[in-house]
Amino acid sequence: MARIVQKYGGTSVANVARIKYVARRIKAEVDAGHELAVVVSAMAGETDKLVALTEETAALHDAREYDVVVSSGEQVTAGLLAIALQDIGVQARSWLGWQIPIRSDDVHGKARIEGIEGSELIRRMGEGQVAVVAGFQGLGPDRRITTLGRGGSDTSAVALAAVLKADRCDILKDVDGIYTADPRIVAQAKKLARITYEEMLEMASLGAKVLETRAVEMAMNHRVRLQVLSSFNNEPGTLVVDEDEIVEQAVVSGLTYNRNEAKITLAGVADRPGVAAGIFGPLSDANINVDMIVQSSSENGATTDLTFTVAKGDLGQAVKVLEGQRDKLGFARLSPDPNVVKVSVIGVGMRSHAGAAQRMFKALAKEGINIQVISTSEIKISVLIDEKYTELALRALHSAYGLDAA
Amino acid sequence: MARIVQKYGGTSVANVARIKYVARRIKAEVDAGHELAVVVSAMAGETDKLVALTEETAALHDAREYDVVVSSGEQVTAGLLAIALQDIGVQARSWLGWQIPIRSDDVHGKARIEGIEGSELIRRMGEGQVAVVAGFQGLGPDRRITTLGRGGSDTSAVALAAVLKADRCDILKDVDGIYTADPRIVAQAKKLARITYEEMLEMASLGAKVLETRAVEMAMNHRVRLQVLSSFNNEPGTLVVDEDEIVEQAVVSGLTYNRNEAKITLAGVADRPGVAAGIFGPLSDANINVDMIVQSSSENGATTDLTFTVAKGDLGQAVKVLEGQRDKLGFARLSPDPNVVKVSVIGVGMRSHAGAAQRMFKALAKEGINIQVISTSEIKISVLIDEKYTELALRALHSAYGLDAA
Repeated sequence: MARIVQKYGGTSVANVARIKYVARRIKAEVDAGHELAVVVSAMAGETDKLVALTEETAALHDAREYDVVVSSGEQVTAGLLAIALQDIGVQARSWLGWQIPIRSDDVHGKARIEGIEGSELIRRMGEGQVAVVAGFQGLGPDRRITTLGRGGSDTSAVALAAVLKADRCDILKDVDGIYTADPRIVAQAKKLARITYEEMLEMASLGAKVLETRAVEMAMNHRVRLQVLSSFNNEPGTLVVDEDEIVEQAVVSGLTYNRNEAKITLAGVADRPGVAAGIFGPLSDANINVDMIVQSSSENGATTDLTFTVAKGDLGQAVKVLEGQRDKLGFARLSPDPNVVKVSVIGVGMRSHAGAAQRMFKALAKEGINIQVISTSEIKISVLIDEKYTELALRALHSAYGLDAA
Repeated sequence: MARIVQKYGGTSVANVARIKYVARRIKAEVDAGHELAVVVSAMAGETDKLVALTEETAALHDAREYDVVVSSGEQVTAGLLAIALQDIGVQARSWLGWQIPIRSDDVHGKARIEGIEGSELIRRMGEGQVAVVAGFQGLGPDRRITTLGRGGSDTSAVALAAVLKADRCDILKDVDGIYTADPRIVAQAKKLARITYEEMLEMASLGAKVLETRAVEMAMNHRVRLQVLSSFNNEPGTLVVDEDEIVEQAVVSGLTYNRNEAKITLAGVADRPGVAAGIFGPLSDANINVDMIVQSSSENGATTDLTFTVAKGDLGQAVKVLEGQRDKLGFARLSPDPNVVKVSVIGVGMRSHAGAAQRMFKALAKEGINIQVISTSEIKISVLIDEKYTELALRALHSAYGLDAA
């Protein structure tokens, strides 16, 4: 007998037929003797519809009222799934954030979970009752409903699994696991049986959209065994686990890409202390995050070129901010370029394999792909390249690291 | 300065444009110096949609989960109206049933309000904040959401007005008041400036769909001054008040009709004690309510005919129940008739005017309309007639009682 938390996303509960199917999946686990807590998202499209209503009412609106409106989506799914479970003879009841309660901070619209009172759920699960929990929502210190921000239902599930000391936390989606690369681009991509928390965290941060970064972080901190699997079939998914649970670790586990960055190059910047602060300070003040940065030394030693990336959506604003500081910064040219992609290889095995970066550079060079910016961490290497090479680069790297399916 | 509770029904908040219009109406009251609490229904069509989802999930379902799903409709409207008010500079916040709380009994799906904690609302209203309250919902003793049954938002508003000791409770609808008769049938119908609680209660019970019976009952018990008016124009509506507030009381205030009844006649029933109990007992056991009853004595004194009405939807079941008791009851014939209508004249003035019933019978006789069943109370007379005479009867009675507009 195990205690399992499962989370079903929007497409998994898109309509009543899907909700009934999910109920039968849960029944199979209950019949196998397991204790279940199930976290649900809003039915596919409902959250977007509710968000649009708040925006139509007022472009700028009170986040507390936004939370009242938007949290209703998960409330509906929770009630319906409890009904569907009871209908096939499974004891179940729905739980809203305020009823458990799932306590959060007061940052409405993107609150963080601070604590969950799990004793009543544990008692009832022990009596065979499935707890159907509305995801994405909490109770603020002001006794009002909070929402956790997009993807928050993953975080609800992991936090609940930590509090309930669950043996496993299943994240059921419309994809059947974590792949070595996006299978829509790399036909040879394989589903990973296991991946480490650290790798999953890098992947989530670097563009893989399967799991939310915050949920992975929380799973890592609380050592919650995550499984990502499909709610549309019964195949085993990918387990996200501790490094020591993976016997034979590949050097590289997977590749990701992120088309959502844009590059800015400032040429002819005075090469003196304080210049970087003069550039990145105003960007930070304008709430613009800078990701990759590279500084190239100039020939004459008096000026330098500075290249960095920002989110594509921030590019226009970033250019405006920098042009506004032109006199002060004294750069010669500002060249924005939205046509770039960040490609990353990830693997905890890189820690002990010095040649991993070299293999990347060689593979890209062989295809004639110029690397514009490089950034590395202990377990990942990211390069910025021309966006048009996205597919070519991913396929070449997938082969170069020996990830292609046999 | 007055303290006002307003309630806006589903068509009054059918979409964002309507919600913004409602916000402007509320702002006008706030600008006039009044304290406002506003009770809202779900956007038109939403409750039906949510009810359909629960029914699609399981025909028979836990009323507690039904309440979780269906109460979300009012939650959305409350949040949106608060946003719309803030957007035009009116301080406002939404309140869900569990937040106030509005305490109810535990009869999920049709709970009754048991108490409302009003002190925090009163304090905030005093500071100029409009309380936007989700109607139709409460908090049960099990700390779960309850709903008050159809039309429950009217009851929410009246109960809130009673607790807040409001000077007035406005019920805003898509009609602009209480009429002497349904204006779609009787072109001469007039809007009443005032009507007594007792008359309104009879009207609501007898088929006028403008106000819910429970809401009127509660207003009467707590002496809440109700006003029924349109949210689509700025005309004054109808005040529902104490009898002593009406200076010149007409004998009859209005007419109603109810097409939702069906007639059953049992002919040749043994005329002995206990027969009525033998007939109505099994109907009551089958949860079928009987409304009008008339027993006609037979010629020979040994048998009698019994005629009564049930809700049209219960007719088939009622016939089945009675046929099942045929041997025991020993009636000669059972004749069901769904083609009947109950027409009623209502007026507290009838108490002191003996001729009111006679005027009704005369007016109907003059049109050749046969009366099948009569039932009376101190302030109303109802007759059951052939359904095809509905319009003819209503128009004739409207003239006979001098109600036609000048």
